[in-house]
Amino acid sequence: MEREYASSLLENAVTELSRLPGIGRKTALRLALHLLRRDPDEAVALGESIIRMRKEITYCRCCHNVSENDVCDICSDPRRDATTVCVVENVKDVICFERTGQFHGMYHVLGGLISPLDGIGPEQLEIDSLIERVADGQIKEIILALSATMEGDTTNFYIYRRLGTLPVKVTQLARGVSVGNEIEYTDEITLGRSLLNRTAFNA
Amino acid sequence: MEREYASSLLENAVTELSRLPGIGRKTALRLALHLLRRDPDEAVALGESIIRMRKEITYCRCCHNVSENDVCDICSDPRRDATTVCVVENVKDVICFERTGQFHGMYHVLGGLISPLDGIGPEQLEIDSLIERVADGQIKEIILALSATMEGDTTNFYIYRRLGTLPVKVTQLARGVSVGNEIEYTDEITLGRSLLNRTAFNA
Repeated sequence: MEREYASSLLENAVTELSRLPGIGRKTALRLALHLLRRDPDEAVALGESIIRMRKEITYCRCCHNVSENDVCDICSDPRRDATTVCVVENVKDVICFERTGQFHGMYHVLGGLISPLDGIGPEQLEIDSLIERVADGQIKEIILALSATMEGDTTNFYIYRRLGTLPVKVTQLARGVSVGNEIEYTDEITLGRSLLNRTAFNA
Repeated sequence: MEREYASSLLENAVTELSRLPGIGRKTALRLALHLLRRDPDEAVALGESIIRMRKEITYCRCCHNVSENDVCDICSDPRRDATTVCVVENVKDVICFERTGQFHGMYHVLGGLISPLDGIGPEQLEIDSLIERVADGQIKEIILALSATMEGDTTNFYIYRRLGTLPVKVTQLARGVSVGNEIEYTDEITLGRSLLNRTAFNA
């Protein structure tokens, strides 16, 4: 292949940047040229932060969230409720729930959702370790907080089945009209669920 | 500041990624989590390609385009017309003109445009070296191929003044209706220029 950019160093950086999701070759070139215009230290800091993150990052032994220590800050916080565990897909979802300020229990990060089409089965996810945590007997409630998609529903159902007869309450996030959304633009399945699961009105 | 992401390695990578133009913290987190899910080699390849590019890239001594050698492939190509020099803002513009397949002369990469608001004056651009190239006497035509913006026009005018009495023809890109555009949606200044600079019709 003929080089497109007159420099194989530039070519190479553009190729690597364009492997990132949502970044095409045009954007990758724009990013690379931006780095060339800026201080060399900035490019080195970026490059090194990526390499260090990938090589040195550790995960919490208990909940599998990213962590500084063997056990993460949330799992080791005595003020948090260790009897309630919120099961989430990934690290980003932990951040989302923490931002709500509404949850004071623990998390369990699955690392993905069951998706046969993408070749992801239960054994690639942190499901066995979740069952073990529940089998310890301390946990009273498991909140299934996965996306309301087919993969999320499949994973919810699989976990529910795996929990079997373990003495734990299993709940899931409420499905309903999003705050700020108009009825007119809410799909009929969501609307149906929001009717079935209606709650007492409090003014 | 309290850590947002439970791991300073992740935090750090997100911060560095979000310095890139057009990438906010949300996108930066998505990119970082993508890299965490992929093979470690991929993150290392990305990080190293960025560092190597910034540290080792070289520029052509003659036209200031990025280059593998002291003098770039275009400047050292004997089949190209060394008497015509196309003056462009940056490396990306060289790629744009090369893609047209319509230009067989040389380039001169300014490295930016004069922009007092951004604190960029002529001395930060490769204008002196352009005047020197022209003063050598080999160049017959300078094509000013800068953006049709205020900064582009200012830079065009400055170069034109600096070229002074040097025996060189100075031209600029035609202004007119973009190919594929409708008259209705073309602004009146462009339309006015396209009338003034009308060309002979050839069927």
